[in-house]
Amino acid sequence: MHITVLAGGVGGARFVRGLRHHLDTMGEAYDPATGSGSTVTVIGNTGDDITIAGLRVCPDLDTLLYTLGSAVHEEQGWGRADEAFRAQQELDALEVGPSWFALGDRDLGTHVARSHWLAEGVPLSQVTARLARRWGLTQAGIALLPATDEPIETHVVLSADPGGRPGEDPGERAVHFQQWWIQMQAQAPALRFVVAGLARATPGPGVLEAIRKADVVLLPPSNPVVSIGIITSIPGVRDALRGTRAPVVGVSPIIGGAPVRGHADACLSALGVPVTAAGVAGLYRDFLNGWLVDSADGGEDYGALPMRARDLHMRDVGSAGEIAQAAIALAEVVR
Amino acid sequence: MHITVLAGGVGGARFVRGLRHHLDTMGEAYDPATGSGSTVTVIGNTGDDITIAGLRVCPDLDTLLYTLGSAVHEEQGWGRADEAFRAQQELDALEVGPSWFALGDRDLGTHVARSHWLAEGVPLSQVTARLARRWGLTQAGIALLPATDEPIETHVVLSADPGGRPGEDPGERAVHFQQWWIQMQAQAPALRFVVAGLARATPGPGVLEAIRKADVVLLPPSNPVVSIGIITSIPGVRDALRGTRAPVVGVSPIIGGAPVRGHADACLSALGVPVTAAGVAGLYRDFLNGWLVDSADGGEDYGALPMRARDLHMRDVGSAGEIAQAAIALAEVVR
Repeated sequence: MHITVLAGGVGGARFVRGLRHHLDTMGEAYDPATGSGSTVTVIGNTGDDITIAGLRVCPDLDTLLYTLGSAVHEEQGWGRADEAFRAQQELDALEVGPSWFALGDRDLGTHVARSHWLAEGVPLSQVTARLARRWGLTQAGIALLPATDEPIETHVVLSADPGGRPGEDPGERAVHFQQWWIQMQAQAPALRFVVAGLARATPGPGVLEAIRKADVVLLPPSNPVVSIGIITSIPGVRDALRGTRAPVVGVSPIIGGAPVRGHADACLSALGVPVTAAGVAGLYRDFLNGWLVDSADGGEDYGALPMRARDLHMRDVGSAGEIAQAAIALAEVVR
Repeated sequence: MHITVLAGGVGGARFVRGLRHHLDTMGEAYDPATGSGSTVTVIGNTGDDITIAGLRVCPDLDTLLYTLGSAVHEEQGWGRADEAFRAQQELDALEVGPSWFALGDRDLGTHVARSHWLAEGVPLSQVTARLARRWGLTQAGIALLPATDEPIETHVVLSADPGGRPGEDPGERAVHFQQWWIQMQAQAPALRFVVAGLARATPGPGVLEAIRKADVVLLPPSNPVVSIGIITSIPGVRDALRGTRAPVVGVSPIIGGAPVRGHADACLSALGVPVTAAGVAGLYRDFLNGWLVDSADGGEDYGALPMRARDLHMRDVGSAGEIAQAAIALAEVVR
């Protein structure tokens, strides 16, 4: 079985880890020697990438790598375990880079290597493949593909004067998504999101094929606006999702009217979309074939969309695996 | 009093630290508010700079900064105190950069900042000035000037086949100075040194003025070939040393026929220069006005060169300061 997943950071990474665990315990482990067993292709969001002190940082790809490579800071959900911040202290003393983005020393090694390779002309997809080998993803039957090789960056348009009328040009300002997300904790209301570089971006090598040739396409409980929404905005991706013969099944990131983690509520509000499982399903309506929601949201109106309700809290690898199993089961039903 | 020093790494840094200590205890401390007191201008060697994983590393400038900023790893003589190597572990795992050059995490912060600024178009001299402020040099009346803003890199030509005849082109190979120095521990005999970029290099801003307008020019016990020898090879520097009205006084890096530290013996041998205090003085003969040697070397033949002999072991800041004091005293005699 070939499963393709569109993923953001923490939620996507934990879902894929659970999915791989589920497949492995079902006798579907990948054998790198023979190529037998099930494979998972993860299309990772690059819309929240950022250049810090001249180093290219890919937060979602790194969270996927570290989580699937058993190197993640488990409680935090991102970054490396056993991390320290000696280099960051020096950058702070020199006032290099934003004060609100702290790079751990181990993490910095990744960014230095990636930036070095990119500067040598190696595309991000090949850089990511090298990192995927380092973290054992390749050997485990997981291919990690950046959504695009071209640099794209999400910016958030805010009202410069909270007392002014939204939409007035002189009263608007834009900040990098990471600044809004980390420093402002998404508290400043977003008027809209602008993705620099999106118009000229093309899907990364293998991305469209992974969607077209999958047996199942899964959407984990990632942010529907700034993670999955960015991936599906890259020209060609949404058409591939609409056209694939594989069932496309999603897992709601909203439970009981609130995001499980992160600021998806603030992102949905910027789009005027209700912060509900049904609201998110509406964003995916042109390509979604099945929708897994939490038991708390089973009573909402999903129209004709095939739906199942169950506990969607990913408490550990096992519970994440059970959610992945339920998503695959729903895909078989709607196929 | 304005003192200009041409310096390499560890020996130069310890000498300048002693010099500053001596001046401060003599009531010559620099007052940044009024600009009164003595000033020290250090012209730092950049010939052993190297690009590691895309980051520009300036070993001698950094050793000067860390030593004068009380942040150096004291026993080691270079690098930062309280250092760790988490980022390097990651670079090792990814096989990025040479295995024989380990970057500490705090140190890496310096290199990331410098590389970022250089990429922005800031010249190395201004980059170094920013670092000098961060480490308190500026406030202490020490200006640190890179010998040149242009990138130069020393390479060592070796015999590819130790059994072959030296000088044969097919039998030669060149390695970066740092590889020869660190990985090979200067054990492979150097045929000659080649400094890439030297022909088009020009003295950094303020370098010639610092030599011409100094009250005293001092040469610390730095490597006479690959540190001071590189600085004096930059077009214009040697002429400035010959032409300055200031007495030029040097401190021998050779004691009893051996370098105090490092591989100056291997460097001198490559030039066919005797590994003696008199041999080094010969390299400086066209501009040297006074020569401070160790008591062990007082019996050598220095010709007409004014010479003093004393203990030249820099055991601590105090003893380094006494050596600097002796050098200044000799400068007053030969003025």
